[in-house]
Amino acid sequence: MAEAALSTEQILEAAEDVLRRFGPAKATVVDVARALGVSHGTVYRYFPSKAALRAAVTQRWLDRAHAELPAVAAGPQSPEVRLRSWLETLYQAKKRKVLDDPELFATYSVLVDESSALIDEHRTELENQLAGIIAEGLEDGVFADAGDPLTLAHIVFQATARFHDPAYAPTWSAPSADQDFAALVGLLLRGLAAH
Amino acid sequence: MAEAALSTEQILEAAEDVLRRFGPAKATVVDVARALGVSHGTVYRYFPSKAALRAAVTQRWLDRAHAELPAVAAGPQSPEVRLRSWLETLYQAKKRKVLDDPELFATYSVLVDESSALIDEHRTELENQLAGIIAEGLEDGVFADAGDPLTLAHIVFQATARFHDPAYAPTWSAPSADQDFAALVGLLLRGLAAH
Repeated sequence: MAEAALSTEQILEAAEDVLRRFGPAKATVVDVARALGVSHGTVYRYFPSKAALRAAVTQRWLDRAHAELPAVAAGPQSPEVRLRSWLETLYQAKKRKVLDDPELFATYSVLVDESSALIDEHRTELENQLAGIIAEGLEDGVFADAGDPLTLAHIVFQATARFHDPAYAPTWSAPSADQDFAALVGLLLRGLAAH
Repeated sequence: MAEAALSTEQILEAAEDVLRRFGPAKATVVDVARALGVSHGTVYRYFPSKAALRAAVTQRWLDRAHAELPAVAAGPQSPEVRLRSWLETLYQAKKRKVLDDPELFATYSVLVDESSALIDEHRTELENQLAGIIAEGLEDGVFADAGDPLTLAHIVFQATARFHDPAYAPTWSAPSADQDFAALVGLLLRGLAAH
């Protein structure tokens, strides 16, 4: 491949493929360079370290996994509908990822565990989206004023951990999972609405 | 030790000690027998297999960890107070276990993972206690009739997983954990009470 044509996206694509094929324990920058037909020095000109490359691959995966969420958060529906739909979108996106490509999901579960700062930032971003919906609900008076939106968002995110934390992925294909999820969101919405 | 004096409790005690010292991967029935000064045949007269012995040790640990819960569930307070107190007792008992003896806690986390039937049974027992409290709240009219008690108990148990699932033990010593827990229980109680 001509080095001039090399884009960050191409490197990340190749790195994801290498991670999937060799596993996160074995994949190296040299493997990524080889897959691209360039020297590892070239890859290092884009990413200063193996850790930086892995973090960028993880970030890209998370962004892709949650691409639909900002639009749901900012949608035209009522805050209650949007809150339910946002949580549903997050749960279904994760579930789809693990069912469609369990190996890649397992790979990313390892990567996510090694990037705690990145994950904290990502979680904050998601909780901010939730907080935005809750803040509107508080303004409209459809949610009761029982705390600040960020705290409530944090609690709703923790309460639904079972349906977005990769540690629980094996339970998402249980026959009762979708029903449990809907019942949980119902209970949380009643709690938010209660005066 | 005279074999006549050997009680099930003594074997379980010795097995817990052996598991803690050697780790769940290495501990054997022979180690347990040696610690008691008896033959391994003697231990097998009480427990037909290594798996049966490990399951009994796990059961004993779970029973001990949750010994206070039935009394809280059956207490004289109102259903709301008891629900909060039951969840708080469960969370604090787990938290104390992991902080007091992290090694033993880690050992039991491994044992728990290998005894899924036992854990299912144990979780059902806990959810039944919760359901009893919720059923009384529904009868008294302090909780809204938004589902059957067992389903609601199951949802409340899932929503609070972060505060009793050993997978989350590392987060329990975070400065915000107790506050997050109280806020979550508050939200769930508002949800249960909402008409």
